[in-house]
Amino acid sequence: MTTLTLDNVSVSTKANVYFDGKCVSHSLVLADGRKCSVGVIMPGTLSFGTAAAEIMECSSGACEYRLAGTEEWVRSAAGEQFSVPANSKFDIRVTGEPYSYICHYA
Amino acid sequence: MTTLTLDNVSVSTKANVYFDGKCVSHSLVLADGRKCSVGVIMPGTLSFGTAAAEIMECSSGACEYRLAGTEEWVRSAAGEQFSVPANSKFDIRVTGEPYSYICHYA
Repeated sequence: MTTLTLDNVSVSTKANVYFDGKCVSHSLVLADGRKCSVGVIMPGTLSFGTAAAEIMECSSGACEYRLAGTEEWVRSAAGEQFSVPANSKFDIRVTGEPYSYICHYA
Repeated sequence: MTTLTLDNVSVSTKANVYFDGKCVSHSLVLADGRKCSVGVIMPGTLSFGTAAAEIMECSSGACEYRLAGTEEWVRSAAGEQFSVPANSKFDIRVTGEPYSYICHYA
């Protein structure tokens, strides 16, 4: 099921801009105090590093991702999610429409 | 005064992507039911049209804007805002760091 809205959140009004705008997010604090972000990745291929473990939940569009130490590109579309370990890396490849996501910290 | 956060909002998780990602926003519903959005414009010059009247409040960075029917570029920086009439057009020019904004519908 796709998460269309997040309610009762506090949103930071300054955007986080990565890779010259190929990835843009806004930081959120949820009603229960947990932090997350909503963002979007434009078509292209980008490499990210994690500090905390992350869960990437797709809210629109789709991507393919490849976790560090793996060769396989795996598709993740709206309503699906994938997990990335702490202190790791992953690649994301987007074709067609932008990939909108919710990034949860696990 | 700069608005750093908006509290008790509902955020749409699908990003609005304009001009191939040169402008990205997320739609919000405020606690009182009013709609607005938080977004960012990358360095460059873009032209926008309005349906409803808008108030563009800068939350980080700065831009210069030029309203339809005027020749003058006017600077708007963090904590400042400008108004655009309904059914009108305006240009925004960003240099240096991205221009983060809150778009209120007047």
